[in-house]
Amino acid sequence: MSKFTISAIENGLENVEGFYCGATNVGMRPDETQGDVAFIRSDTMCDISAVFTNNTFQAAPIKHFQQYPQNFKTNFVLINAKNANAMTGEKGIEDIQTIMSALFSKQAVNNPIMSSTGVIGYRLPVDKIISAFDTLDFNEKNSNAAACAIMTTDSFKKELAYKIKLEDGNTFHIAAICKGAGMINPAMATMLCFIITDADVPKSDMDALLLSSTEKSFNRISVDGDTSTNDTVMLLSNKKSGNYNKEAFETVLNKIMFELAMMILRDGEGANKLVAFEVKGAKSLDDAKTASMALSNSLLVKTALFGEDPNWGRIASTIGASGIACDEKKLTIHYDDLLIYSDAYRELDATREKQAYTIMKKDMFTITCDLGLGEESYISYGCDLSYDYVKINAEYRT
Amino acid sequence: MSKFTISAIENGLENVEGFYCGATNVGMRPDETQGDVAFIRSDTMCDISAVFTNNTFQAAPIKHFQQYPQNFKTNFVLINAKNANAMTGEKGIEDIQTIMSALFSKQAVNNPIMSSTGVIGYRLPVDKIISAFDTLDFNEKNSNAAACAIMTTDSFKKELAYKIKLEDGNTFHIAAICKGAGMINPAMATMLCFIITDADVPKSDMDALLLSSTEKSFNRISVDGDTSTNDTVMLLSNKKSGNYNKEAFETVLNKIMFELAMMILRDGEGANKLVAFEVKGAKSLDDAKTASMALSNSLLVKTALFGEDPNWGRIASTIGASGIACDEKKLTIHYDDLLIYSDAYRELDATREKQAYTIMKKDMFTITCDLGLGEESYISYGCDLSYDYVKINAEYRT
Repeated sequence: MSKFTISAIENGLENVEGFYCGATNVGMRPDETQGDVAFIRSDTMCDISAVFTNNTFQAAPIKHFQQYPQNFKTNFVLINAKNANAMTGEKGIEDIQTIMSALFSKQAVNNPIMSSTGVIGYRLPVDKIISAFDTLDFNEKNSNAAACAIMTTDSFKKELAYKIKLEDGNTFHIAAICKGAGMINPAMATMLCFIITDADVPKSDMDALLLSSTEKSFNRISVDGDTSTNDTVMLLSNKKSGNYNKEAFETVLNKIMFELAMMILRDGEGANKLVAFEVKGAKSLDDAKTASMALSNSLLVKTALFGEDPNWGRIASTIGASGIACDEKKLTIHYDDLLIYSDAYRELDATREKQAYTIMKKDMFTITCDLGLGEESYISYGCDLSYDYVKINAEYRT
Repeated sequence: MSKFTISAIENGLENVEGFYCGATNVGMRPDETQGDVAFIRSDTMCDISAVFTNNTFQAAPIKHFQQYPQNFKTNFVLINAKNANAMTGEKGIEDIQTIMSALFSKQAVNNPIMSSTGVIGYRLPVDKIISAFDTLDFNEKNSNAAACAIMTTDSFKKELAYKIKLEDGNTFHIAAICKGAGMINPAMATMLCFIITDADVPKSDMDALLLSSTEKSFNRISVDGDTSTNDTVMLLSNKKSGNYNKEAFETVLNKIMFELAMMILRDGEGANKLVAFEVKGAKSLDDAKTASMALSNSLLVKTALFGEDPNWGRIASTIGASGIACDEKKLTIHYDDLLIYSDAYRELDATREKQAYTIMKKDMFTITCDLGLGEESYISYGCDLSYDYVKINAEYRT
């Protein structure tokens, strides 16, 4: 067990040695005080690991990324909001190539990456984006501008940074910006997350840890159960600190990604509360995961959370409908520590109903379903469904 | 090809020879002008076929039904609203037995069936329900009262009847009552449907046709994608007309069940429009069904329908996320007859956007997605998601 200390630091991406970032508004976003094109640049080449959406209709930037050879290095990421460059066919990829050629004339870039978020089905405004290269300062460090520029329906920017001090006194940094509120809204599409580090992390660790950390964070949250064409999580490392400790790196990567995932959930469109759905005592991990995700995705559970109605029947029914092995005699349901259903205790009396109501008023609580059939468990995280969710999603785009 | 004529007739269940029906209010429903306990009785024994929910936590009445031997006959169905008798354990079944014993002292019943809809997790008010047997007139024919008594969040009663005249001049009848609005709301639970006929239909035809007809009707609609603990479709035949023609029977059974399913969808909680999601050109029937059901269940598609936003990106993204074989170059999307997406036509111009908007204003239209990969197709039916859905489901029970 290695010793290390972790401290949260301000100003996000600015803390990581050799990285630069900023943003500008090229007229895609009507509010000119907020950018719509952002960049992240490293002054040396970076290893890169990425996790993309499972959607068959991957957006053009994801297809563009996949044209690079395995284990390629890069020094530049360009990100735009307001347009997903998805379902745009070959033209969508050609547009990225045009933009990247123009960028190269301003700034030496190697294997540049593009990432987009916004509405599906429209060509990128190539000329407007190219015009950004005249106004952007590629030697700037402005994490706030970059974090704000990638927002779509987000109501707050999502930016975190940590400094890790190892036992020998050496340090490295991990920082990230992220966007997402609809988790995962194919129309505006997407959740995007960019993590940068100056740790001297081997590429093989980057790949493995990014995958496992994604499974424990972004893959466990649900706002509306949809999977976008553009979902992207990227990790870039330029090794500049020369320092690394796997345990420390993994701990902080997990921490930063989990915290960002919770920020997305807190910012779930119209959401007011965050609920952890723990399913334990399952026969298999698949069963636990299926039931947990069914709960965090259920419209009826979500609306009951919004109504603060301790209607455990919706919880039970959702588990029963999920197709997993379960038995109403062995099932127990708790809201935080309050027993709300068991075989011996099937009707909610007034006292417990009142206690349940108090728990549901909180802006975060846990619903634990013990299936009583085995040893496997899974937690996913969801939020309530409010009038505002409908409003945001009915009115988006128009 | 046999010849027959079909005519719609008034007064639902009252048209079927040898059947009686009615309802009373025993105090479970606050509004005393509407019943909460209904019955359907035949003066001779009936064959019965039934299709129940796939939810593992089947409600007590479904478990009670399954205690009878295969191919049993019955002459009585008792139905209550406001309480689902679900997740009530052994006691739930004992309560049904107590009620049925009391019923037997008033009225000779053989293998009586009970069916319930309402909130999950509460014992039935046994004494109140037994008190109904003093006020009900078991020789009454009051289809309206029965259809109204089984409603929960339904905003209108669902009742249909058809008279079938065969080529030789002989006739038989099929009639039904049905309830459901949340399709399928585990809290209030349920959709229930009771179909009665005096046709001389063989039991084997009843079983086969009820299954195939359910697949083409109730299994193709989605309001919120949840499956209740109580979903029940029942077909009772007392053979009293002595007449039967399989083709005519199947045609009318399909018709009556499809029409009832569309009524449920029209009455979808807070829903304003009905949309048919046709997926064709699929490699397999499974693919077509998966994509079609993904569309009718998608929150983002539903909110776009409510917002009347011709945002085909949400349609495409939902298909891409459904995991089926698809290719954005071969896909085409139509709203009614209007081409809205193809490889050659990816951006929605102002003219077509206006045309699409006009189609979306209608209270019924079809979205057709041709995958261009094969010959299989599937249609499911959905509705929009409005503020009122959230309101109804957040406030239900409290």
